[in-house]
Amino acid sequence: MSAQPKKPLNVLQKMLDKEVFVRLKSNVEYHGKMVNVDVYMNMILDDTKEFYNGQQTASYGTVIIRGNNVLFVGLKNSANI
Amino acid sequence: MSAQPKKPLNVLQKMLDKEVFVRLKSNVEYHGKMVNVDVYMNMILDDTKEFYNGQQTASYGTVIIRGNNVLFVGLKNSANI
Amino acid sequence: MSAQPKKPLNVLQKMLDKEVFVRLKSNVEYHGKMVNVDVYMNMILDDTKEFYNGQQTASYGTVIIRGNNVLFVGLKNSANI
Amino acid sequence: MSAQPKKPLNVLQKMLDKEVFVRLKSNVEYHGKMVNVDVYMNMILDDTKEFYNGQQTASYGTVIIRGNNVLFVGLKNSANI
Amino acid sequence: MSAQPKKPLNVLQKMLDKEVFVRLKSNVEYHGKMVNVDVYMNMILDDTKEFYNGQQTASYGTVIIRGNNVLFVGLKNSANI
Amino acid sequence: MSAQPKKPLNVLQKMLDKEVFVRLKSNVEYHGKMVNVDVYMNMILDDTKEFYNGQQTASYGTVIIRGNNVLFVGLKNSANI
Amino acid sequence: MSAQPKKPLNVLQKMLDKEVFVRLKSNVEYHGKMVNVDVYMNMILDDTKEFYNGQQTASYGTVIIRGNNVLFVGLKNSANI
Repeated sequence: MSAQPKKPLNVLQKMLDKEVFVRLKSNVEYHGKMVNVDVYMNMILDDTKEFYNGQQTASYGTVIIRGNNVLFVGLKNSANI
Repeated sequence: MSAQPKKPLNVLQKMLDKEVFVRLKSNVEYHGKMVNVDVYMNMILDDTKEFYNGQQTASYGTVIIRGNNVLFVGLKNSANI
Repeated sequence: MSAQPKKPLNVLQKMLDKEVFVRLKSNVEYHGKMVNVDVYMNMILDDTKEFYNGQQTASYGTVIIRGNNVLFVGLKNSANI
Repeated sequence: MSAQPKKPLNVLQKMLDKEVFVRLKSNVEYHGKMVNVDVYMNMILDDTKEFYNGQQTASYGTVIIRGNNVLFVGLKNSANI
Repeated sequence: MSAQPKKPLNVLQKMLDKEVFVRLKSNVEYHGKMVNVDVYMNMILDDTKEFYNGQQTASYGTVIIRGNNVLFVGLKNSANI
Repeated sequence: MSAQPKKPLNVLQKMLDKEVFVRLKSNVEYHGKMVNVDVYMNMILDDTKEFYNGQQTASYGTVIIRGNNVLFVGLKNSANI
Repeated sequence: MSAQPKKPLNVLQKMLDKEVFVRLKSNVEYHGKMVNVDVYMNMILDDTKEFYNGQQTASYGTVIIRGNNVLFVGLKNSANI
């Protein structure tokens, strides 16, 4: 029997505890460990680093990103899930 | 008996496992294999490549795009579905 | 007996299978055959051509446009419906 | 007995079959005959003419304007209703 | 017995038939007689005059302003209500 | 027994009849007496003064501000509540 | 038994009475003590200081920030929670 198709928001759950990058609409990126995420794409990152145009611009501990600012989310090692 | 009219969001389902391009409001495009999509046009792409002004600008593994950023979606080979 | 007033979203249904132009908020236009449309103005176009400032800038097969980007829709031959 | 207060969306109905102008957020105006309008201010215009900065820039047949782009609507002859 | 606190949307009703100014997000102002207003701040103005940077730029009869464009509304004579 | 945590929208109610400043997304500020406020942050100010970049740019009587434009609200004397 | 996954909005509650920074979409930051926060990320800060480009630009007492302006929130000492 074939597997259920993967729903986008379910796949976000597979990113828990993994290193992710989060591109915001402003084109700033946040890299960190995905601690949690909800259906609005509100998410918690630990050990967060901020990048702009490929340059690190800041580092933080835990941040909570408001989901409506998110453009896309990916795994940091560029792998498929 | 004639077929039911194709609803826009049903047609998105026909793009599963196909190579698609996704134009965002920012005019950046993401090309990749459509792994899944929901009714908000949140979608998962595998083997994602980023293009801007016709130039590839980055490549990623799996990305999850937040649907509210999407301008339009098409099949990469320019075919009608 | 006079006809019912034509509701905006019903009139969109009358555009099915016709050649339409769709102006987006970005002022880019998409011309193609209207294959389907829903109440959010999500729509499917076949044989889509992209225009900007009156110049064709690209051509696609089927595209699915997210309705919230739409400014207005019209019949390509400038006729009243 | 005094009349009911006129609700904004009811007054839109009084503009049916009249010549109206519709200013969009982009400051482009569309002038035409108001064929129909719904509570989101989605509206159908016939014999539509486009104006920008007081200059006509295009003419169309029937267009369907997505209501969320509308800034305001008025009668073309500057009369009160 | 003291009066009920005045709710913002109730106070709008007190502006009916008064001369008001309506500042939009674009910083354009419309001055006119408030004929009606609903809970979304959709409103009808009669004898409307348009101002930008303190200069009158146009005059209209009745206009219907879509509420989501409104920044604030006040009485034209700068009085408290 | 310890007090209930103060909910953000409840605290707005504590600002009634006090001198407040309201920063809008446009960075314009309105200073005045908070006459009322609802859960969308629609609010009524009396004796309103407008400031931009620390300079007073206008004064009004009562204004009704549409809540979706608000960035933040504070007490004018910089005190904690 | 392992702990429940931490939901983003629950983690916000863990920031109560702590020193936080709040980055808004405008890239202005507000630093202060998080007095309360609700599910829309409306929040109350005490002893608020405003920063732009790393420079303090103002100080306030209590401010109430409208949640839809928030980009992200973090603990001021850059620690994980």
